[in-house]
Amino acid sequence: MTDTEYRIEHDTMGEVRVPKNALYAAQTQRAVENFPISGDRLEPAQIVALARIKKAAALANKELGTLDGAIADAIAGAADRIIAGEFADQFPIDVYQTGSGTSSNMNMNEVLATLATHALGATVHPNDHVNASQSSNDVFPTSVHIAVTQELIDDLIPALDHLAVALETKADLWKTVVKSGRTHLMDATPVTLGQEFGGYARQIRLGIERVQAVLPRVAEVPLGGTAVGTGINTPLGFPQRVIEIIVADTELPITEARDHFEAQANRDALVEASGALRTIAVSLTKINNDLRWMGSGPNTGLGELHIPDLQPGSSIMPGKVNPVIPEATLMVCARVIGNDATVAWAGASGAFELNVAIPIMGSAVLESIELLANTSRVLADKTIDGLEANVERAAAYAGMSPSIVTPLNKLIGYEAAAKIAKHSVAKGITVREAVVDLGYVERGELTLEQLDEKLDLLSMTHPG
Amino acid sequence: MTDTEYRIEHDTMGEVRVPKNALYAAQTQRAVENFPISGDRLEPAQIVALARIKKAAALANKELGTLDGAIADAIAGAADRIIAGEFADQFPIDVYQTGSGTSSNMNMNEVLATLATHALGATVHPNDHVNASQSSNDVFPTSVHIAVTQELIDDLIPALDHLAVALETKADLWKTVVKSGRTHLMDATPVTLGQEFGGYARQIRLGIERVQAVLPRVAEVPLGGTAVGTGINTPLGFPQRVIEIIVADTELPITEARDHFEAQANRDALVEASGALRTIAVSLTKINNDLRWMGSGPNTGLGELHIPDLQPGSSIMPGKVNPVIPEATLMVCARVIGNDATVAWAGASGAFELNVAIPIMGSAVLESIELLANTSRVLADKTIDGLEANVERAAAYAGMSPSIVTPLNKLIGYEAAAKIAKHSVAKGITVREAVVDLGYVERGELTLEQLDEKLDLLSMTHPG
Amino acid sequence: MTDTEYRIEHDTMGEVRVPKNALYAAQTQRAVENFPISGDRLEPAQIVALARIKKAAALANKELGTLDGAIADAIAGAADRIIAGEFADQFPIDVYQTGSGTSSNMNMNEVLATLATHALGATVHPNDHVNASQSSNDVFPTSVHIAVTQELIDDLIPALDHLAVALETKADLWKTVVKSGRTHLMDATPVTLGQEFGGYARQIRLGIERVQAVLPRVAEVPLGGTAVGTGINTPLGFPQRVIEIIVADTELPITEARDHFEAQANRDALVEASGALRTIAVSLTKINNDLRWMGSGPNTGLGELHIPDLQPGSSIMPGKVNPVIPEATLMVCARVIGNDATVAWAGASGAFELNVAIPIMGSAVLESIELLANTSRVLADKTIDGLEANVERAAAYAGMSPSIVTPLNKLIGYEAAAKIAKHSVAKGITVREAVVDLGYVERGELTLEQLDEKLDLLSMTHPG
Amino acid sequence: MTDTEYRIEHDTMGEVRVPKNALYAAQTQRAVENFPISGDRLEPAQIVALARIKKAAALANKELGTLDGAIADAIAGAADRIIAGEFADQFPIDVYQTGSGTSSNMNMNEVLATLATHALGATVHPNDHVNASQSSNDVFPTSVHIAVTQELIDDLIPALDHLAVALETKADLWKTVVKSGRTHLMDATPVTLGQEFGGYARQIRLGIERVQAVLPRVAEVPLGGTAVGTGINTPLGFPQRVIEIIVADTELPITEARDHFEAQANRDALVEASGALRTIAVSLTKINNDLRWMGSGPNTGLGELHIPDLQPGSSIMPGKVNPVIPEATLMVCARVIGNDATVAWAGASGAFELNVAIPIMGSAVLESIELLANTSRVLADKTIDGLEANVERAAAYAGMSPSIVTPLNKLIGYEAAAKIAKHSVAKGITVREAVVDLGYVERGELTLEQLDEKLDLLSMTHPG
Repeated sequence: MTDTEYRIEHDTMGEVRVPKNALYAAQTQRAVENFPISGDRLEPAQIVALARIKKAAALANKELGTLDGAIADAIAGAADRIIAGEFADQFPIDVYQTGSGTSSNMNMNEVLATLATHALGATVHPNDHVNASQSSNDVFPTSVHIAVTQELIDDLIPALDHLAVALETKADLWKTVVKSGRTHLMDATPVTLGQEFGGYARQIRLGIERVQAVLPRVAEVPLGGTAVGTGINTPLGFPQRVIEIIVADTELPITEARDHFEAQANRDALVEASGALRTIAVSLTKINNDLRWMGSGPNTGLGELHIPDLQPGSSIMPGKVNPVIPEATLMVCARVIGNDATVAWAGASGAFELNVAIPIMGSAVLESIELLANTSRVLADKTIDGLEANVERAAAYAGMSPSIVTPLNKLIGYEAAAKIAKHSVAKGITVREAVVDLGYVERGELTLEQLDEKLDLLSMTHPG
Repeated sequence: MTDTEYRIEHDTMGEVRVPKNALYAAQTQRAVENFPISGDRLEPAQIVALARIKKAAALANKELGTLDGAIADAIAGAADRIIAGEFADQFPIDVYQTGSGTSSNMNMNEVLATLATHALGATVHPNDHVNASQSSNDVFPTSVHIAVTQELIDDLIPALDHLAVALETKADLWKTVVKSGRTHLMDATPVTLGQEFGGYARQIRLGIERVQAVLPRVAEVPLGGTAVGTGINTPLGFPQRVIEIIVADTELPITEARDHFEAQANRDALVEASGALRTIAVSLTKINNDLRWMGSGPNTGLGELHIPDLQPGSSIMPGKVNPVIPEATLMVCARVIGNDATVAWAGASGAFELNVAIPIMGSAVLESIELLANTSRVLADKTIDGLEANVERAAAYAGMSPSIVTPLNKLIGYEAAAKIAKHSVAKGITVREAVVDLGYVERGELTLEQLDEKLDLLSMTHPG
Repeated sequence: MTDTEYRIEHDTMGEVRVPKNALYAAQTQRAVENFPISGDRLEPAQIVALARIKKAAALANKELGTLDGAIADAIAGAADRIIAGEFADQFPIDVYQTGSGTSSNMNMNEVLATLATHALGATVHPNDHVNASQSSNDVFPTSVHIAVTQELIDDLIPALDHLAVALETKADLWKTVVKSGRTHLMDATPVTLGQEFGGYARQIRLGIERVQAVLPRVAEVPLGGTAVGTGINTPLGFPQRVIEIIVADTELPITEARDHFEAQANRDALVEASGALRTIAVSLTKINNDLRWMGSGPNTGLGELHIPDLQPGSSIMPGKVNPVIPEATLMVCARVIGNDATVAWAGASGAFELNVAIPIMGSAVLESIELLANTSRVLADKTIDGLEANVERAAAYAGMSPSIVTPLNKLIGYEAAAKIAKHSVAKGITVREAVVDLGYVERGELTLEQLDEKLDLLSMTHPG
Repeated sequence: MTDTEYRIEHDTMGEVRVPKNALYAAQTQRAVENFPISGDRLEPAQIVALARIKKAAALANKELGTLDGAIADAIAGAADRIIAGEFADQFPIDVYQTGSGTSSNMNMNEVLATLATHALGATVHPNDHVNASQSSNDVFPTSVHIAVTQELIDDLIPALDHLAVALETKADLWKTVVKSGRTHLMDATPVTLGQEFGGYARQIRLGIERVQAVLPRVAEVPLGGTAVGTGINTPLGFPQRVIEIIVADTELPITEARDHFEAQANRDALVEASGALRTIAVSLTKINNDLRWMGSGPNTGLGELHIPDLQPGSSIMPGKVNPVIPEATLMVCARVIGNDATVAWAGASGAFELNVAIPIMGSAVLESIELLANTSRVLADKTIDGLEANVERAAAYAGMSPSIVTPLNKLIGYEAAAKIAKHSVAKGITVREAVVDLGYVERGELTLEQLDEKLDLLSMTHPG
C-alpha cells in the first residue's frame, strides 16, 4: 500500500496500516496479513447470522443497562445494513484463521463500530461497545449454529421436499409399469417402476426426518457463555434476551444451551448434523446410480428410462448424450462425504474450554447444505421431471426374468422351481414354456390356469 | 475331510461334502469354502436376532395357514435353543460373503431344519419350511436392525448413562474447585473443575439423545418385502404378525417399514446410526484428551488431576504410570470412526432392489456399539471414579492467569485492561499487583475494594 | 479364580493373582483385567515379529556385553519357540490397551522370562534381561513395521501378482473379442474385452508399485531409540546389530530410522502405507463393479460375461445365482477404506515423543493387508479364472452403438456425424443404414468402400 | 438476457442464447445453465494445463498432417494467451458438471476456436479443429494430471522444503537445550529441543519423499486414448508428440500411460497422491499440536516455547495471545483429510471405460496442494522462524522428571529404580535426593560420582 492508500489504525498490539476506505480496522487487517492461505471467505449466511447476534446483543445490552441506548441503537442500525447484504466486501478474512473465529468476530465488531460511529457522530468501540457482554468464544459458534439452522430449515428441507414431490409424481404416474426387479444386479421378481420411485421419494423424505432429528441440538447455542462458558462479564438475563430477539427476528427454533461448558467446548452437534447430511448424500448416490443404469444405452445398456437430453455428451463421439445431472449430483455427494470427514476431524480437536476449528466446521457444513439443496432442485427440475419410461422394454425384461418362477415354490417346492428356472435359461425359453417342456402340465402337477394366475407379472408386485 | 469325517448333502446345485456332525448342510458348506477371507463371523447378537425372526415367522406362518402347525412348532422350538445361545459354533461363515447375507440366512435355515427334523421325526425343509414367506433380502437386514436396536437400547444407552453418572458425581464433588480456564490452550478466566465435568457429562447425555433420535428409523425393518420389496410369496398380514411376536418377545420398538422398496434397497438408517456413534466417539475423544492433559506430569505437566494407577507404564522408565484407559478409549474412537467410513461406503453401494453390503454394515455397526459400551463402562469404573483433584495446584493456576483481568474491562475498558495483563506477564507479578504497579489505585481509578470484588476467582465462574 | 487356580506374582505395583499355569506374569494379568473391551488380540504376525526382535536383542546384548551369554541364549531359544508358533494362547491382552503397546511388550517379556527361566534353571527378569537395551516405545512400533513389511512382501504382493496373472490370461484370451465401449454408462466406440481386462491387470500391477513405493519408509524402524528416541540405556552399536540379525533371519529390507525422534513419535509411514492399501481397494472396487455389471442378467442385464456359479443365490428365488465373490470383495474394500480412516485418525494423535495409538494402527494395517491378499486370491481362483465371455452378445452390442459413427468425423465433420448417429437411434437402424438413408452414398459424399473400412469394429479398437 | 445482450449460437442440439461478448459458445452456455450448483470453478492451474494440451495437440496435428498448418498455428497462438493468464473469466462452468469434464473441455475448445477464428479470419471449429485427435475423456484427465504434477513440483515441494529448513534451523540452534521428554504426556527421560525439531524437520522431508514416490504414477497421462482408450481418430505417434511438446514447454516429467484403458477408466493415481497429501496433513497435525502445547500458558501451561505474537487473541480477555497459525494449519489439515475422503469416494465411482468424477477429483487434489503449500510457508515464516525457547523452564522440567532415574536400572535393576522414582514423587524431592534418602549411598550400593555421571541430563540425550 502506498502512503495515500492507507490509514493508521491501532489495537492493543500497536499500529497497523489499513486500506484507506476500509470499514474494518487494525485487527481485521492483521488477520488479512496473517492468513494468506486459501482465498476462501466465511459463508455469507454466517456473516448475516453474526450481524443478527450483534444487533440483538446491542438491544439486550441497552435493555439491561450494560450499553448506552444511543450507542446500542447505532450498532443495531449498522447491523441491519449487514443483514440486508450491504458491505459484503468488508469481510476479507480467510476461513483458515484463528480457530475461535476471533478474527472474524473482531472484523464484524470493527465494521459495526465504524458504521455506528459514523451514524452516531461519536466513537463506538469494537470491544467495549459492539462486543459488550460477548466473547468470540460464544458469539462465533453461535453464528455458525444460527446459520446452519436457518439454511437447514429454509434451504435444504424445502429443496428435499421439492425433490421428493418430483419423485412421488413419477411414482404415481408409473405405478403399474411393470419391470424386472434386480437384486445383486441379477434378474429377480417383478416390481413396478412406480414402486422404485416411491422408494426413492421415501429415502428423500427420510432425509428430511434426519435433518429434523438433529435440529434440536444444532439449534442450541452457546451464546451467554462468553470467554469460557461461565458467562463472565454478562448481565443476568442477557443470553435469554438476546435469543428472544433473534427468535423474534428469524422465527428459528434457537434455544440457549442447557450446559454452557459443553456448548462452548464442543461442536458435536455440527458433527452430528454433518452425519445426517452425509446420509442424505448416501441416499442420493443410490438414487442417481439407479437412474444412470436405467438410462444406460440407448442401445447397449438397460434403456428402461430416457433421461432428458441437456447437452452434447462428447467432444469426439457425435450424437452422444450423457446423464450429466446425476453425475454432477454424485460429485456433490463425494464432496459432502469429504466435508463430513473434515467436520468430524475438526470436531474432535477441542481442548478444555474451546474447540478451535470452528471456522472450517461452519464453512464445511454450510457448503454441504448449499450443495445438497442446489443439487436437489437441479435434479428434480432438469432430470426427474423429464424422465420418460420405456414401458415396452421394461415389461419385456420383467417377462424374461427366470425369477418369475418364484410363485410356483408354494405349489411344487423350491427345488423343483429351481430346475424350471435353470431349464428356461439354458434353453432360452420362457418360464411358462419351461414348465410345459418339463412335463408339469402333462403330468397334471400344474394346470395352465394355475400358470396363468401364478405367472401374472403385475400380481407378483404385491403380496397376498 | 476323510471319508469318515463327512456326509453328502445336496442343494439345487448338486452334492456337497459336509462335516459329519454339522447341523448345517450344503449351502453353508459351499459358503465356508467360497469365502476363506477374514476368519471373522457375524456378531452373536445378529445370530440371535435372526433366530428370533425365524421363530416368529414360523408361528405367524402357522397362524396364517402357510405352514403346518407341527413343523412350525418344531422350528420355533429349535430357534429358542439358538436364542438361548446353543450351537454358536454352527455358524461358521465369514462376514465377507454374499452381500445379501443369503449364505448366513441359509445357514440358519439349515441348522433349524436339522434341529426341527430331529425333534419332529419328519423332514423339515430349509427353504420351503424354515424360510417360508421369507427371503434373505428382507430377513437378513431385519436381523441387523433388530440386533442394532437391541444393542443400542440394552447395551450402549445404559453404558453411556453409567458414564454420565460417574462424570456427574465428580461435577457435583468439584463444583467449587476453581481452576484456570484454557482457550486455545492459553490462560483464560477461571472455571471450576465441576463445571468442566458437568460439560463432559452433558456431552455423554447428548450422546444418548443422539442414539434416541436415530432409533425410530433404525427400528424400522424391511421384513415382509421378501425378494424385492413386493412381498411376493407372503400371506396378507404376515409381516405385521411376525413383528408383533418379536415385539412381545423383546419389548423392542420394532416397526414395519413404511415403504418396503426403500427399506430393502437401502441401509441408510445404519449409515445415520453410525453417524451418531461417530459423534459419541468425537465426544469421548475430547473428554479423554482433556483427562490426559489434566493428568499430565506428575512433575512436568499440568498435574491438575491424578488418574488412578492401574499398571506400570514403561518397560524401561521405572515408576512411570500412564493414562492407559483414556488411551484405550481414544483407540476405540479411532476404530468407531473407521467403522463409520466403512458403513457409509457400504451404504452407498446398493443398486435397484437391494443393498449388497449388509453383512459388513451389520458387523461394523454392532462392533462400534460394543466397543463404545464396553469402553464407557471401563472408563467410568477404572478412571473417572478414581480421579483425584489437585485442588491447590488448580487454584494456584487460576490465580496466575493474566486473563483474570477480564472483569476490569467494564471499569476501565478493554485496552487499559490489556496493558495490565501484559504488564503482569512481563513482570511476573499478579494482576492485582500489576494494577497497583501501574498506578490505578494511586490515581483513584480503581479502589482496593473493587479489586477484591472483581478479582475474586470463584465469583468469576458464574455471571451476574 | 479359586485358590487352586492362581499363583501370586508381583511387579513394581505389588501383588497380582495370575492363572496358575500362565507363562505370563503380573503385568500381563493387570492388562487383561484393565482392558475388557473388544476381545480382539494383536495379529499373530506382530507377535512373531516381536519375538524376533527379542531374540535379536538378546543376541546383540550378548555380543555387546550388556547381557550374560547364557541368559541371552535362553531368551533367544525361548523366542524361537514363539516364532515357530508355540504358545499363541499366552498373549491374551486386548488390542485396545495402552497406546504404546507396553502391555503387550511386557507380556512378551514375561512369557520369554518364564520360558528362559525354566530352560536355564536360573531367574531371567522380564525387564532387566529380556527387555535389556529396549523400551516398549521403540520395540513395539518396530514389531508393527516388521510385521507390516513382511506381510506386504510375502503375502500381499504375491497375492496381487496372482490376481494380475489371472487377469492378464483373460486379457490375452480375449484380445480380439469386440464389445461396445461405455462411457458415462452410455454407448461408446468399441473396445475389446481383452483391452478391458488388460486395464484391470494394469491396475493391480500399479497396486504392487504403490506398495513398493511406500516400503522404504515402512521398513524404517525406530528400534534403538528406547524411551524417547535418545537411545538411553543402549550400548553403542545396538540397533545396528539387532537389525542385522533380523535381516539375516528374515531377508526383509529393514533399516534403522534415519531420525529416531521422528521414528518414535510418529507412525506416518503406516498412514502412508494405509493410503496405498486404500488405493488398491479403490482399484478392486472399480474392477468388481465392472465384473458385476458385465455379468448382470442372465436375461435382463448386460450378460457379456458369465461369472462362475458358486452357490445358490436366493432363499426364495429358485435358480438364481449371484456374483458372490465380487460382492465379498467389495465389502473387503469397504473395510479397508474404514481401516484407513482409523489409521489416519490414530496417526494424528501423537504428542511429543510418542504416538500412543500404535496397537490399533498395527492391527488395522495388518487386517487390511490380510483381507486384500485373501480376497485377491479368492477373486482370481473362484471368479476370474472361470469367467466366460458371451462373444456374440458382446459383438452385437458393439455394432449397435451409435458411437461407431465416430470415424466418419474426419470425412464429414462432427456435426454431420452427429446427425447420422441421432438418425440411427431414432429410426432403430444401424449407423451404416443411417448413412445410406440420409443420402451420403447417393450424393457421393461417402462410398460403400469407405463405410466398410471406417465402420469395421475391430479396427476401431486401435489407433492409426 | 435481453435481445441486445446475447447472440445466437448453435451446436448439435440446436440454438442457444449466449452472452454477446462471450468468447465461448453454445455448449459452454448450456453447461452454465445446467449446473447452477456451487459457484466454484475449476482451479486456474487446470485451465492452464488444458490450454497447454490444446496448443501441443494443434502443433502435433500439424506435424502429423491431421490439421491445416495455419489453423494449428492460430489455435496454438490462442492457447498461449490462455496460458499467459488472459481470459480467465471465460471459463464460467461449475465444478459440479458432467463427470468427464466434457463441458470444460468444450469451453476451452470454444474459446480457442473463437480466438483462432478472429486471428485467422477463417472459421476454426471447436470439435473438428481444436479438439482434433482428442476426446474429453483423455484430454480432461490429462489436464488434471499435468496441473497436479506441476503444483506438486513447483509449489508444494518447495514450500515443504522451506518449512523443513525453518525447522532444521531451530533444530540446530537448540541442539543442547535440554528439556523433559514426554511419552503418554507423562514425564519421561530428557531430550533436547533440537532433537524434537529435528524430528519435525524429518517428518516434513519424509513428506517430500512421499510426494516424490507418487509422482511417477501421477505424471502418467491418458492422452492419446481419445474416446475409450483405443485412440480412435488419432494418427500414429500423436500422444508421443504431444507429450514431447508439453515436456519441452514445462520441464515436467510427464509420460504416456503404459495402458490407456487403465489410464482412462481410473484416476487411481490421484487417490494415491491424495493419500500422500493426507499423510503430510497428519504430520503437520502432530507438529502443530506439539507447538501449541509447548507454547501453552504463559502461566498455566507448559511455557517451554514462546510463539510469536501476531494478533490480539480475544475479544473479551485483554492481553491474550493465541497460537493462531498452528490453529489455521490444523484446520487446513482437516480440510485436506476431508478432500482425501472426497477423492477416494470419487475415485471408486468409475465404470467401464471412464471415471466420471474427474472435475471434483482434480479440484480437491489441487486445493489440498495449494492449502498445504500456503500453510507451510505461513507456518515457517510467521511461527517457526520467530519461536523462542524458554531454556530455563525447559531445563528445570528435565531435572524434575522422575524418569531420569532410568540410567540407574543398569546398576541397581528396574525394580529398585522404580522405588526411587516413586519415593521422589511422593516426597517431592529430586531423584538424586531420593537415592540418598533411601540409603543407597550410605550402603555403598551407589557412589556420588556414579550419581553425577548417571544423572547428567544432557548425556541422557544420546546413547552409549
